[in-house]
Amino acid sequence: MPKLDTAVVGLDIGGTSTRATVLTLTGQRLGSGRAGGGNPTSHGAERAAVELLTALREALSDFDPARVVAGTIGLAGAGRLLADPAGRAAFDQAWQDAGLRCPYAVHGDALVAYASGTAAPDGTVLIAGTGAITAQVRDLRLDRIADGHGWLLGDAGSGFWLGREAVRRLLADLDAGRTPGTLATAVLTELLGSAEIASRPRATVDATIQAVTRRAPVELARLAPLVVDAATHGEPVATALITEAAAHLAESVGRIRAAGAVTPVVLGGGLLTADTPLAAAVRVEIARQWPDAPLRTAGDGAAAAAWLAARDLPEVTDPAALHARLFPAP
Amino acid sequence: MPKLDTAVVGLDIGGTSTRATVLTLTGQRLGSGRAGGGNPTSHGAERAAVELLTALREALSDFDPARVVAGTIGLAGAGRLLADPAGRAAFDQAWQDAGLRCPYAVHGDALVAYASGTAAPDGTVLIAGTGAITAQVRDLRLDRIADGHGWLLGDAGSGFWLGREAVRRLLADLDAGRTPGTLATAVLTELLGSAEIASRPRATVDATIQAVTRRAPVELARLAPLVVDAATHGEPVATALITEAAAHLAESVGRIRAAGAVTPVVLGGGLLTADTPLAAAVRVEIARQWPDAPLRTAGDGAAAAAWLAARDLPEVTDPAALHARLFPAP
Repeated sequence: MPKLDTAVVGLDIGGTSTRATVLTLTGQRLGSGRAGGGNPTSHGAERAAVELLTALREALSDFDPARVVAGTIGLAGAGRLLADPAGRAAFDQAWQDAGLRCPYAVHGDALVAYASGTAAPDGTVLIAGTGAITAQVRDLRLDRIADGHGWLLGDAGSGFWLGREAVRRLLADLDAGRTPGTLATAVLTELLGSAEIASRPRATVDATIQAVTRRAPVELARLAPLVVDAATHGEPVATALITEAAAHLAESVGRIRAAGAVTPVVLGGGLLTADTPLAAAVRVEIARQWPDAPLRTAGDGAAAAAWLAARDLPEVTDPAALHARLFPAP
Repeated sequence: MPKLDTAVVGLDIGGTSTRATVLTLTGQRLGSGRAGGGNPTSHGAERAAVELLTALREALSDFDPARVVAGTIGLAGAGRLLADPAGRAAFDQAWQDAGLRCPYAVHGDALVAYASGTAAPDGTVLIAGTGAITAQVRDLRLDRIADGHGWLLGDAGSGFWLGREAVRRLLADLDAGRTPGTLATAVLTELLGSAEIASRPRATVDATIQAVTRRAPVELARLAPLVVDAATHGEPVATALITEAAAHLAESVGRIRAAGAVTPVVLGGGLLTADTPLAAAVRVEIARQWPDAPLRTAGDGAAAAAWLAARDLPEVTDPAALHARLFPAP
């Protein structure tokens, strides 16, 4: 059984965790590993390389690393890593320290998310988590990008955006002397530890602003689950915000995806892979604008990275069949 | 002529300049002074007190300060100054060093802006400059406030907001591969020194984001004049932004001003006191929602502060007439 003798390795390096998967060329999982967050942009390439090595060693504990014939690493800020010789050297060293002798490719996390949803070479991936970004994929390479501009100038419809808008609605209620609704009450409680409004409501306004500005702006994304939860229960302000967020996300898709396109659209990121009202609203919006596009949800990123490594090997004659085995239809 | 023997002094302390005016109780200007920015929140109370003294000495160079019977200081962050004993002591010392023996009152800049537009005790003031804030005035005191929540969570329709939205529209053009219009071209030139778009437009996107994030976010307000200028020439994107900004500003007024109110509305701040398309759009919006409200424009803040000091004196029997002399209808 020669094919069981060779394997590919895939890594998905994210801000909160690093995951590694070792697969045979027929899609059998030989090992997996997990380590801490290793995004080189936020953590530094050296720290990222340490997590990379930890995840690789765990994944390869039952398999001879010399038999791995190809590897792919997916991570946010892949372009920056490739442009940084010291960072690249740290990754090379971790790769060798894990006993791997094959070359490896580095791809952006958006491409890996795309590949975890479809084997089609061309399509669109829309990711909404803390931030929001859309990419066109051509021949399984990232082509054009929309948004991903960061919280100050973009990320419309993201977790940051939902959190900020929820606070803005709360402040408008306090200004106007309106009784806060369910969402505003939840936001107030999360930020101030109590939903009580001072006899002079401007004091509560000031306390709310201070509670937000004490932290980094991007931390507003921590409030997004409150919006998602309130919308799940039909709260009107939250529902309106979800609708608006979905429109923003679909608008960013429309910047780079042709009208009438029939290639797949893959939804990724924590806000769109879970069964949230935002995911549902985005599906409706995408289906309205691109009625013939297959809609997919991103899955296991490490397995997708391993698939990207495997598909170019001459032994893998039917990459789509391998993808179907790795990501069975739900 | 006993009334010429007594005077009042008014000060308008702003972020970029401090202005002082000495007036007789009949509205004759006896002196004026100017010094650097002295907002105690941004510059510290001690520095503000130095500018205060400079402006006072210049204004009082031809008049015996002992004959000043009342004074008013208008400044942003008045409440914070009053709550800070050291800051208050620095202001007291400057007041004495200028030779003044009378007491003085401290009011928020929004109240002074209001009083520079009308003598009516009750009304609304809407200010849009770098930020945006609305206040209800009751018996010539600030009552309820709307917005003024700062750039991260509010200031909708302000100079910051216009600048940020202009960059967002530019980034959307670059994402979509649209040829930038007049406003987007002006923003690109301001930020990057050239309107040339890289062969890989994402490089221009990244350079634009970096040019913005190198500075403090509030510096986005520096782009507002580009929007105002483009809208003056009928540029469609700028015109749409101005319309949206006016709607935001009117919405914040609506949070605290009763439907059908007939008290005056005073427009203040650099974006609304100049003859800008935003001022025109706000006038239309306010007139639509409050058709019977007199619309006024803020004028000389130091004179308004002096008027606030004078109006409570027993010698001033007709404060409205004094106001009319100080601020003749245009």
